[in-house]
Amino acid sequence: MKIRTISSAELGSRANFSDAQVRKDLGYFGQFGVSGAGYNVDELKGELETILGKNKIFKVAIVGVGHLGNALLAYTGFRKHGIEIVAAFDVDVRKIGREINGLTVRSIEEISAEIAKKGVTLSIITVPAAEAQEVADSLVKAGIEAILNFAPAYLDVPERVKVKNVDFLRELETLSYFLVNKGEEQEQQVK
Amino acid sequence: MKIRTISSAELGSRANFSDAQVRKDLGYFGQFGVSGAGYNVDELKGELETILGKNKIFKVAIVGVGHLGNALLAYTGFRKHGIEIVAAFDVDVRKIGREINGLTVRSIEEISAEIAKKGVTLSIITVPAAEAQEVADSLVKAGIEAILNFAPAYLDVPERVKVKNVDFLRELETLSYFLVNKGEEQEQQVK
Repeated sequence: MKIRTISSAELGSRANFSDAQVRKDLGYFGQFGVSGAGYNVDELKGELETILGKNKIFKVAIVGVGHLGNALLAYTGFRKHGIEIVAAFDVDVRKIGREINGLTVRSIEEISAEIAKKGVTLSIITVPAAEAQEVADSLVKAGIEAILNFAPAYLDVPERVKVKNVDFLRELETLSYFLVNKGEEQEQQVK
Repeated sequence: MKIRTISSAELGSRANFSDAQVRKDLGYFGQFGVSGAGYNVDELKGELETILGKNKIFKVAIVGVGHLGNALLAYTGFRKHGIEIVAAFDVDVRKIGREINGLTVRSIEEISAEIAKKGVTLSIITVPAAEAQEVADSLVKAGIEAILNFAPAYLDVPERVKVKNVDFLRELETLSYFLVNKGEEQEQQVK
């Protein structure tokens, strides 16, 4: 049987939030639920898709076609999230011109022209840390509005450009720091 | 010329923090700097390496040898961060037994034995979301103490196990949400 309505308690338990948090967060965007009856699932889904821009397709460019760039180009889950990779760039002449998942890798020098032509607004940076700022500069110049940065480097960009960092090395460091301290705590307990 | 001392202001400007924040954060671990003279670079480096566990090697296992797992296995920057990938696991029989960067991919069923044998304390999960919890359960059972999770899934683990999530889809969604709202703001300004 199809679930037609859902309570804030059930939504909360699935997402690991309290029901109050769910009501508060959704309330921020307007009045969705019916007190006592919960949320109409189809209606809520539609509203959330609009809020999150899920009914739009975002054209994305990847700069840096190393192992990580390749992994992202091969990732099939983007489409479901409204992301379409439409351009890929690299500095390596051995990679330029190569076709990956139907996309031809282009030279970094073509960033500006390609981004304008393809209506790219968001870019993913997967180059080494030392090259990240220069790439970001090119992207900003080309009119990019948002950057997902996988390079372990701080990017200096104008305020109008939004940057999110995916810094798995930093996360790993946090974990190894946790392991170091955990060990010390255990030693102290043993003493 | 080699830089022998560095001020909290200079450290802060390089890391994009205030000098007060630098002094406060370092002060948390003890007395390093000399007022007026700054920090001795070699000394500070050594202290920080000890604090962060950089002088230790953490043995890490990767579960899930898809595109992302492969990218991580090929990543040469881990060693510098005290990370050594010593085991790789997958469910796919076509991958099991294959050698990648000197590591033989093993069956998920061997997790427990391998992790004990190789002294692994930290594991990276790069399986699809639907398989992540089952993998986490196996790792916890095998005695893993920390998990870096790339699967877009919430992992339910005992409190003693530390989990960090690298959820690039969520970061992408934040960016696309920013782009949607930015557009609306611009429309409102035009009206």
